Amino acid sequence: MKVSIIGATGYTGAQLVKILLKHPQVEIETITSQTFANKKISEIYPWLTTDLVCQKLSIEQITLSSSFVFVALPHQTSTKIVGELYSSGKKIIDLSADFRFTDPLIYEEWYGAPHQKKELLKKAIYGLPELYREKISRTHLVANPGCYPTSSILALAPLVSNDLIKENSIIIDAKSGVTGAGRALSLATHFPEVNENVRAYQVKGHRHTPEIEEQLSKLAKKKIIITFVPHLVPMNRGILSTCYAALKQKTDTNDLLKLYQDFYKEEPFVEILHRGTFPQTKEVANSNRCRIGITVNERTGKVIIISAIDNLSKGAATQAVQNMNIMCGFEETMGLV
Amino acid sequence: MKVSIIGATGYTGAQLVKILLKHPQVEIETITSQTFANKKISEIYPWLTTDLVCQKLSIEQITLSSSFVFVALPHQTSTKIVGELYSSGKKIIDLSADFRFTDPLIYEEWYGAPHQKKELLKKAIYGLPELYREKISRTHLVANPGCYPTSSILALAPLVSNDLIKENSIIIDAKSGVTGAGRALSLATHFPEVNENVRAYQVKGHRHTPEIEEQLSKLAKKKIIITFVPHLVPMNRGILSTCYAALKQKTDTNDLLKLYQDFYKEEPFVEILHRGTFPQTKEVANSNRCRIGITVNERTGKVIIISAIDNLSKGAATQAVQNMNIMCGFEETMGLV
Amino acid sequence: MKVSIIGATGYTGAQLVKILLKHPQVEIETITSQTFANKKISEIYPWLTTDLVCQKLSIEQITLSSSFVFVALPHQTSTKIVGELYSSGKKIIDLSADFRFTDPLIYEEWYGAPHQKKELLKKAIYGLPELYREKISRTHLVANPGCYPTSSILALAPLVSNDLIKENSIIIDAKSGVTGAGRALSLATHFPEVNENVRAYQVKGHRHTPEIEEQLSKLAKKKIIITFVPHLVPMNRGILSTCYAALKQKTDTNDLLKLYQDFYKEEPFVEILHRGTFPQTKEVANSNRCRIGITVNERTGKVIIISAIDNLSKGAATQAVQNMNIMCGFEETMGLV
Amino acid sequence: MKVSIIGATGYTGAQLVKILLKHPQVEIETITSQTFANKKISEIYPWLTTDLVCQKLSIEQITLSSSFVFVALPHQTSTKIVGELYSSGKKIIDLSADFRFTDPLIYEEWYGAPHQKKELLKKAIYGLPELYREKISRTHLVANPGCYPTSSILALAPLVSNDLIKENSIIIDAKSGVTGAGRALSLATHFPEVNENVRAYQVKGHRHTPEIEEQLSKLAKKKIIITFVPHLVPMNRGILSTCYAALKQKTDTNDLLKLYQDFYKEEPFVEILHRGTFPQTKEVANSNRCRIGITVNERTGKVIIISAIDNLSKGAATQAVQNMNIMCGFEETMGLV
Repeated sequence: MKVSIIGATGYTGAQLVKILLKHPQVEIETITSQTFANKKISEIYPWLTTDLVCQKLSIEQITLSSSFVFVALPHQTSTKIVGELYSSGKKIIDLSADFRFTDPLIYEEWYGAPHQKKELLKKAIYGLPELYREKISRTHLVANPGCYPTSSILALAPLVSNDLIKENSIIIDAKSGVTGAGRALSLATHFPEVNENVRAYQVKGHRHTPEIEEQLSKLAKKKIIITFVPHLVPMNRGILSTCYAALKQKTDTNDLLKLYQDFYKEEPFVEILHRGTFPQTKEVANSNRCRIGITVNERTGKVIIISAIDNLSKGAATQAVQNMNIMCGFEETMGLV
Repeated sequence: MKVSIIGATGYTGAQLVKILLKHPQVEIETITSQTFANKKISEIYPWLTTDLVCQKLSIEQITLSSSFVFVALPHQTSTKIVGELYSSGKKIIDLSADFRFTDPLIYEEWYGAPHQKKELLKKAIYGLPELYREKISRTHLVANPGCYPTSSILALAPLVSNDLIKENSIIIDAKSGVTGAGRALSLATHFPEVNENVRAYQVKGHRHTPEIEEQLSKLAKKKIIITFVPHLVPMNRGILSTCYAALKQKTDTNDLLKLYQDFYKEEPFVEILHRGTFPQTKEVANSNRCRIGITVNERTGKVIIISAIDNLSKGAATQAVQNMNIMCGFEETMGLV
Repeated sequence: MKVSIIGATGYTGAQLVKILLKHPQVEIETITSQTFANKKISEIYPWLTTDLVCQKLSIEQITLSSSFVFVALPHQTSTKIVGELYSSGKKIIDLSADFRFTDPLIYEEWYGAPHQKKELLKKAIYGLPELYREKISRTHLVANPGCYPTSSILALAPLVSNDLIKENSIIIDAKSGVTGAGRALSLATHFPEVNENVRAYQVKGHRHTPEIEEQLSKLAKKKIIITFVPHLVPMNRGILSTCYAALKQKTDTNDLLKLYQDFYKEEPFVEILHRGTFPQTKEVANSNRCRIGITVNERTGKVIIISAIDNLSKGAATQAVQNMNIMCGFEETMGLV
Repeated sequence: MKVSIIGATGYTGAQLVKILLKHPQVEIETITSQTFANKKISEIYPWLTTDLVCQKLSIEQITLSSSFVFVALPHQTSTKIVGELYSSGKKIIDLSADFRFTDPLIYEEWYGAPHQKKELLKKAIYGLPELYREKISRTHLVANPGCYPTSSILALAPLVSNDLIKENSIIIDAKSGVTGAGRALSLATHFPEVNENVRAYQVKGHRHTPEIEEQLSKLAKKKIIITFVPHLVPMNRGILSTCYAALKQKTDTNDLLKLYQDFYKEEPFVEILHRGTFPQTKEVANSNRCRIGITVNERTGKVIIISAIDNLSKGAATQAVQNMNIMCGFEETMGLV
């Protein structure tokens, strides 16, 4: 299958190239970059062993040559391009936030501009295979989840689906590596400012908040609101989400472990850890896995769920490939670890 | 004033040496080390510019030569030594956990052994100057607070003192640098295991939990219980404590900022940040300061308080010097930044 | 082909497991560990997705079940085990230093003990495929090169083979990540001691010195001595070797680039960079590649060659797999990137 | 004494502010910043506890108010400003490269523009107190040395002064923390690009090369040329310079240690380490010290000298304060550690 990657030179795009180069069912046809057009991508990322050359974006050329397209562009830049590709009948995975919300007003509120392609929102499926595998297999447009939402939703889905936690008690304290902020320069990601430092950011409201809330609300079949604070940690890759919630009734750790193991028992990429064990980001680096540890604090009646993913992998590029596998009828784990 | 430091070659002890060498009112008389007796401390820490030589511990010699003693030994090792020094009339700051609790049963429960000097517990003052300055000035024995408790209690004191938060709603998600784990070797602090990694530890119950609870309960004049999860971050120094609590009633950020500014208005080492600003650990490295940012999440009714300290400084060595200054009638900020 | 890994739970052993799990021609039969016998290796390294369980070493069992054996044990522990395996007719790659030297006296001088299996030294082939591919394809025993020697010899081979540099002018200043020191605990690899620090070590003579010298001398067909200083850098993986030498006669950068490109033109894992470009360790992380940049400093008549490898990959585990591929007649790049 | 700092918000300027705030003989009168005029410097660097506000630069105002001026501006921006201040009779320390060379043609060759104030070059004294203390005490204009030159010249001065090393044999392989590249954003200092990476840069010729050569040549009383390659290490502060040279005649380590100890015996900030001991950058962080270790490799006849400094301290700000102390007749170590 011939695939193209629009926006191949960001950190996520480059991961997509790396994974797809080794995917047995895929041939990369075109990669695009505004900034690096006509350069080999191996000049920008020498760890990529390929002769692929970045092209200026031509929707027409991609439409003619490829049957599957990954769009890894910034929010808002994606909308129109996805619209054109969709009209031409291609299968698309969009890695921006542009098609993640059902309600365009929520998008407008948190992303600061009206949605330009509202009619497509109802076509798009939220690309979390653990929740929407069936729908993903039938759609032409997947909105690939954000990195924080992936780790948070997987951590909380079994609890909210089973109505086990008190209203408005969810707190998600997330810690991310710096690639999550992308390749664009900023003082906040200048080495001497990040190294030997830890800090929270967007404490008053990060854009992944409504994305997490929409998905948890769907699972709970009622409105769920959360308190979410992301932090920047001096490392490149990984997200650790420490989630706290108040249990509705006395429940012990073993019960919850059982619940989680059942909920995810068919999932190839979600692992529930043994009692007393909690995940570390290092354990999932460069993999599509999500590892989850759970404990009930019996003194306080709170449940603590800790999940670890690689923000560029399960939080972006490998999850996109997992979605592609499902959309195309390939084995779901193909090309992934 | 002649002072001695018992246990001078741990990370905290070495910081004490560094600070006291520059303190205008102090002369270091004796430093002790079991492991490095008869070695210059500058051989172990070449950044210390002093000819001081580590001695084997002799209580008698210290009693004769010094009028003030810092004890920077592991928990349980401290108890007896502090007892002997106290009997001899010395002023003492103990940096272990051995004298931080009023109730010996809590110590026994969390530290796994009966307290060997129960009668001294009521003499000891918990060395958080922001809460107990007056008592510190009159005692001969200060129990220097733990690093996590210092950052957590300062973050929460104004709220719990004013009964503004709902029962059992406090969650403290703390992130620490690796010096907090000390100089003893372990796989958990082996460089390749820590670097490019973040993880929670002692999720089921860290020993600083009851210390924080005892102090918050005193402030609240009722039993407070908390959910506390510490995390290890790939950096040397610093603690960032992100604290969450549910507000009893609708309160806005400005009201709380005012409350905090008033609560700490006389404090030389506590800074309340402007609205919308939150601290980073880098800002307090090598200083005795604690910086605090606050916001109310009006969607969820939660207050988020973030505090940053240096775990080896305000979390240990410089706070001990602040306590010494108070105990000895020196200017409280002397020798500190 | 059934293979076993003796000493699978060190950093190198674990990399071997990871790579061989995905190798199309290989099935891992047995992995051994003294420390972790009867544990799943995924308990020690959760990023390994396998159910393999560590066994106590039984040469007999391995001899019966496997046709190829990797020995990843410390120096001196290897000798006897390799001897027994060799007698039983197995193909072996030994990752220790025990079979890297032709002359047992050099081994004895630098490793501090007489060699216990001198007669095997002449059977063993030094496993640098770029130099000894043909011999490797015919041997049953490969001594896998050290990490520093791999990066240094590849950087210098074209020059010394062509007799272009002045006698005794080679200086190798190498910078390594901390996994090179292994998983054993030491103060020198304790996180707070390594982080925010760079230092040289074994300045008076590192054991890889004679290994580099032996190989360069063979290439030069005369005795070559070098000055080699390794440094520890606060990162996990990677070796950057900056090599300096005085040119015998005026030569320009382009001439040398041509020489290097020719020397390595058939090599799938060695890349000579364009003029003015120099490698970074990040570019070869997790890969079997060695990237080399060259420049002549015309003011001083010195040539500067900089090579980058991943110490655990081309410097250990993936190079071992490259050797296995050659020894077994598989495609040389199979399972490698 | 009233001092001003022109360019106070770069990394070096901020260090100057920090040190001078605690200097007993100094009051900071004015700090300037183009980018942050009218902002408190504590908003930019919250670890600075001062109410000082950045001003737009007014030479007139500074001339009226201050008797001593530090100029911490980029190369070429400094020249004219230093010229005006000099004319007005002020004492000046310039931290740029603009007045470090005797020969304006060398400046022009390496800095790419003609020197705009050639007549001042002969007034300026190179501010390495260990070499030029006497002249510094009598000048009005000090050119503060570069960070790499400080570490390299101190490492090599005793050898070249005594004519002990072979012509054109000096190689300096230097490793620097990232603050050396300043606060300006670049992909090369973007956190994910630096972390888990080490690389050489400006391999074909770094601007500090002629600065080192000029000073070594003066000491040698003949033309010295060097091969200098700087490297970027994932840490904030520190320079480790590993220097190699061929000895003219057989010399042993003890002889050289004696030579170095004698050469620096009056120096408060230079330390020669015991035989077999070598410095680490961590040991000199935040200090004005330079630590030097030496060994002779008897196999190769090479001497290896390793020096460690803090690039922002002895390599910039604290060395400037040391120079100020000398220029003003204060105790040379005042305000420094």
